[in-house]
Amino acid sequence: MELSLIESLAARLRRPDPRLLVGIGDDAAVVRSLPVCVTSVDAVVENVHFRLDHPSFTFADLGWRALAAALSDIAAMGALPGEAYFALGIPGHVGERNALALMEGAEQLARHTGVTIAGGDVVSAPVLFASVTAVGWAHSPEELLTRAGAQPGDLVGVTGRLGARPPRPWPRLAQGRALAGAGVHAMIDLSDGLATDASHLARAGGVRLHVELSQLPLAEGLAEEAGLAEGVAKEERLAGACVAARAGEDYELCFCASADARERVERALHDASGPPVTWIGRVEALADGESPATVFSDERGEPVELHGYEHRW
Amino acid sequence: MELSLIESLAARLRRPDPRLLVGIGDDAAVVRSLPVCVTSVDAVVENVHFRLDHPSFTFADLGWRALAAALSDIAAMGALPGEAYFALGIPGHVGERNALALMEGAEQLARHTGVTIAGGDVVSAPVLFASVTAVGWAHSPEELLTRAGAQPGDLVGVTGRLGARPPRPWPRLAQGRALAGAGVHAMIDLSDGLATDASHLARAGGVRLHVELSQLPLAEGLAEEAGLAEGVAKEERLAGACVAARAGEDYELCFCASADARERVERALHDASGPPVTWIGRVEALADGESPATVFSDERGEPVELHGYEHRW
Repeated sequence: MELSLIESLAARLRRPDPRLLVGIGDDAAVVRSLPVCVTSVDAVVENVHFRLDHPSFTFADLGWRALAAALSDIAAMGALPGEAYFALGIPGHVGERNALALMEGAEQLARHTGVTIAGGDVVSAPVLFASVTAVGWAHSPEELLTRAGAQPGDLVGVTGRLGARPPRPWPRLAQGRALAGAGVHAMIDLSDGLATDASHLARAGGVRLHVELSQLPLAEGLAEEAGLAEGVAKEERLAGACVAARAGEDYELCFCASADARERVERALHDASGPPVTWIGRVEALADGESPATVFSDERGEPVELHGYEHRW
Repeated sequence: MELSLIESLAARLRRPDPRLLVGIGDDAAVVRSLPVCVTSVDAVVENVHFRLDHPSFTFADLGWRALAAALSDIAAMGALPGEAYFALGIPGHVGERNALALMEGAEQLARHTGVTIAGGDVVSAPVLFASVTAVGWAHSPEELLTRAGAQPGDLVGVTGRLGARPPRPWPRLAQGRALAGAGVHAMIDLSDGLATDASHLARAGGVRLHVELSQLPLAEGLAEEAGLAEGVAKEERLAGACVAARAGEDYELCFCASADARERVERALHDASGPPVTWIGRVEALADGESPATVFSDERGEPVELHGYEHRW
């Protein structure tokens, strides 16, 4: 890769950070740690996760989204955001100016979230790809949440609205920390869609999650797309909820909290200036021989089959 | 990506590590930190950095090499190796079995070096790529070295032999720490070749590096390839040295140390069971108006022009 691109990138990303001891331009970045380090990697590939010829595609949005996806995992652990590292594969049809636009989009989100983009790698590739490593920090393991820990009797909550797929999603970093501080038992971010991600909570907790589709907070855009409006027929509302449950890239948080933590959770989210919580279901104990899963039902209590997908580890 | 591949990978990589609090299978990995965190990212792409149809290509070697490249940067800082994270782009023509072979190659090196592969991402892609994030640790910033710090009067040393491009290179982790402990002033790993990497030392230190090509420790394989043998003509020896100086992927260490640290450095490398050091040149002050650079000369002291390349930031 041309040295000029690297230097242009470095010039745009250089920004004072008292924790950063060695930034872009050495063999590795060096930062002062907190006692616990939280790391997530998220990769996106042209024509797999995005298309350059999509009418609303911009390189700056792509950079923002790629960083948002990785930071959303940091949010889901309840960690403080720290640094990000970008590995970029740049094809000839993208070029230097667009690569810079991509990183400027990422840098905008980084500034908003107090994250330092501290290094990475830039290589030639036949298609555009971005692999983002996001690093977060905690003062102790007890500050963090995992996917495991849902208890029978817990309520299932989500932040914000589902199904919107905004071009510039916000990772729910402050909300994740607030929820962890409010004593939530288990948490995940909705990157692959509720249908998939809620099942991870079920599996990690060894429980059944029961989600009522009629309770899902649908994105406004989604309702319009599906031709839904005030006074919409119940079946159409259900169809919208199914779309929302399967939609990935919401980057809202889904969590399980005991019923008596309900008010504490709502207040913590309010204090974190976050979107309100919507309670969408409950956690149930498994019957003998039953496998952990998420069960979706319509408003009559009838089960609804939903299939998601999964690609992260 | 198929869940079965993720689970197969996770099963192969799961290994006890008392520092690892949350491993593969949650939103993010969680590890206990040391006070200073050192991070490097290194990406390789099919048909750019390697070819599947090369006669000696194996997926296991590729996984080893990809991890070695990232760990080599950790070695060059003098840091303790910690964790690695793999973002893999897997095309249809590679398939699950080969992806597992790649990660098994990486895991072999990880075991040898005490590194835990703690997470990553697996996505579909039109070509195979691997982006490796390597994380190292130090108890204090003073334990670490950077590219900056070369002083006029310093000697320039390298570990091992140059130009071999072994299929399974060893990152010089123990040697990097030994050199940092022996009071070396500046260090870099030879990933892009001495011609390029020595210039980074010159630029970061604001000095001129003078390297005598006749002093380069040539790899045995290289000498054979170039048709060199005992009693080789001087011009052929020089040609071999030029190849070695331009060859990347050596992953040896190049460093600058004061002349009176010479014995201490040699002893430290010996104690680290590393390859011996070869002193290949010296550091000189810049004349007025002169730009930092590395100057190569033949054994008559005549300058030799060498051009390298660069892609890392």
